[in-house]
Amino acid sequence: MSDPSTPRILVIGAGAIGAFYGAALQAAGAEVSVVCRSEVDAVRENGFSIESKRLGDRVFRPAQVLRAAGDYSGGPPDYALVCVKVVEGTDRAALLRDAVGPQTAIVLIENGVEIEDEIAAAFPQNELISALAFVQVSRIAPGKVRHFAFGDLSFGNYPGGLTARAKQLGALFESAGIKCALTEDVVTARWQKCLWNAVFNPISVMGGVLDTGHILGTAEGEALVRRTMEEVCSVAAATGHPLDRALIGQFIEGTRKAPAYKTSMALDYENGRPMETEVILGNAVRAGRREKVAIPSLEALYALMKMVEMRCMHDAGSRPAPG
Amino acid sequence: MSDPSTPRILVIGAGAIGAFYGAALQAAGAEVSVVCRSEVDAVRENGFSIESKRLGDRVFRPAQVLRAAGDYSGGPPDYALVCVKVVEGTDRAALLRDAVGPQTAIVLIENGVEIEDEIAAAFPQNELISALAFVQVSRIAPGKVRHFAFGDLSFGNYPGGLTARAKQLGALFESAGIKCALTEDVVTARWQKCLWNAVFNPISVMGGVLDTGHILGTAEGEALVRRTMEEVCSVAAATGHPLDRALIGQFIEGTRKAPAYKTSMALDYENGRPMETEVILGNAVRAGRREKVAIPSLEALYALMKMVEMRCMHDAGSRPAPG
Repeated sequence: MSDPSTPRILVIGAGAIGAFYGAALQAAGAEVSVVCRSEVDAVRENGFSIESKRLGDRVFRPAQVLRAAGDYSGGPPDYALVCVKVVEGTDRAALLRDAVGPQTAIVLIENGVEIEDEIAAAFPQNELISALAFVQVSRIAPGKVRHFAFGDLSFGNYPGGLTARAKQLGALFESAGIKCALTEDVVTARWQKCLWNAVFNPISVMGGVLDTGHILGTAEGEALVRRTMEEVCSVAAATGHPLDRALIGQFIEGTRKAPAYKTSMALDYENGRPMETEVILGNAVRAGRREKVAIPSLEALYALMKMVEMRCMHDAGSRPAPG
Repeated sequence: MSDPSTPRILVIGAGAIGAFYGAALQAAGAEVSVVCRSEVDAVRENGFSIESKRLGDRVFRPAQVLRAAGDYSGGPPDYALVCVKVVEGTDRAALLRDAVGPQTAIVLIENGVEIEDEIAAAFPQNELISALAFVQVSRIAPGKVRHFAFGDLSFGNYPGGLTARAKQLGALFESAGIKCALTEDVVTARWQKCLWNAVFNPISVMGGVLDTGHILGTAEGEALVRRTMEEVCSVAAATGHPLDRALIGQFIEGTRKAPAYKTSMALDYENGRPMETEVILGNAVRAGRREKVAIPSLEALYALMKMVEMRCMHDAGSRPAPG
């Protein structure tokens, strides 16, 4: 029997991100279960092994390892952590529906902007916490996850504010070594992350994968990055979430100073995985269109990404599916 | 001894295009010599073999096969055909200087817009003919060229007009089965070709080579093509060479109806060859900047191409040079 004061947490979509943060919450004393469709057998047998220089290697054995949220037993969880990648064809509300009770706080740990409304509309009575992960973590084999760098979270309630339960979740993460920037305005925090993501991610997929060094390596390249970031700032401002435009220079200089690296979208592209084009870029483009902001560079990148996705789809159709 | 009425023609840069048109002019009765630095020995021994379903297979044995234009003997040629690809680092004037006499007509058979001024400035006294080739032809081995499709030329004098010598050249080509559209306004003809080239070529290099089917396969893709073509039309108009905007729809529909294919720039990219970014796209961008035309889509494509070229340069530096 678990202590009734122990928070019960269900991680939906325990890929690399879900396993990493689930392990942290378990280390902090929570009772953590996972839904992970494809790797259930491996995880039931061995748990997740998580390699992390920063947090130490560990094995994370979830309380329950489930194929579907509806199999969760013991009553609804206190927190449902949604860690599925938001790509076309994923119905996140359907994944959640069978496990969420009236007291469950839904926590989205996902990329992108304007990703909350769909969940808020499907679960209007539930507390909704929106979280951004600044982490480099990869699944390297079934049940095996490697943590490369970072790990911080930024979150708050959607559409705004910061409840006691959000703070409780922050305290749990902090006690496991995960720094949390709690914010009353998580939507602005999402736009701020989008400022980098919606620009560097799609560009990195062009011309056979460009790393940050290639992207900032010419005057024209840097100017395109800057112009596109200006457009993102204009869209964010038009939606009521203005960003400090000084961030543009800071992001560019910060990226230039770091060793050249490939974005998550470039890695997805190289590995034939679905790319988060729609939430990272498409949602920003749709917001720009809706708010009637001029976004020609964003539109160009978005159109190019749609072409690239079409080619990837054709390629996937003409080769065996990944195992 | 050659007949003094036989036109003497020197082809500078006898790659696939130069060999193909040189062979046609020889078949028409001209005395044709070539400068082809890397393949001199093979061509001296065996000539060029040219496979062409449309014009028939033939062996083209040039009158003189030279390493440099300065080695050309018998006095300056009547026509110097410049068929070198216009890529960064090519000094076309220097390649020509040692062979051009006061009566030599310089004929540029090259891609791009605004490529003539450099040659007009270097040879202000010479007649300058500017020609566009609509041809699909490739070098498949040293001295071996395959003609896949088309072959027509469009040309006229630069900056405008159509002289007797341009017409004489047209008659020679025509008698060898090469259709020539002679024009008093070749600059507008260049912008018209640029309307397709400056759009489909750079896009085709994005995301690991896109064919025309991928490019026009989504609504967003077609919209980007259309917007970028609108920008090219605006630049052409600003330079005094307005295009009929109905061409945009015609080009898109024509491309959609043809079987999906890869552009010349995509093929250059795949084969690690230099791409004609600067003459096909960069010159259009510079013209747009000079004329203060809004060209955000062209600018985005140009910046992406510069990034891709930077990556190709790095890649080329880290692998053995092609043999």
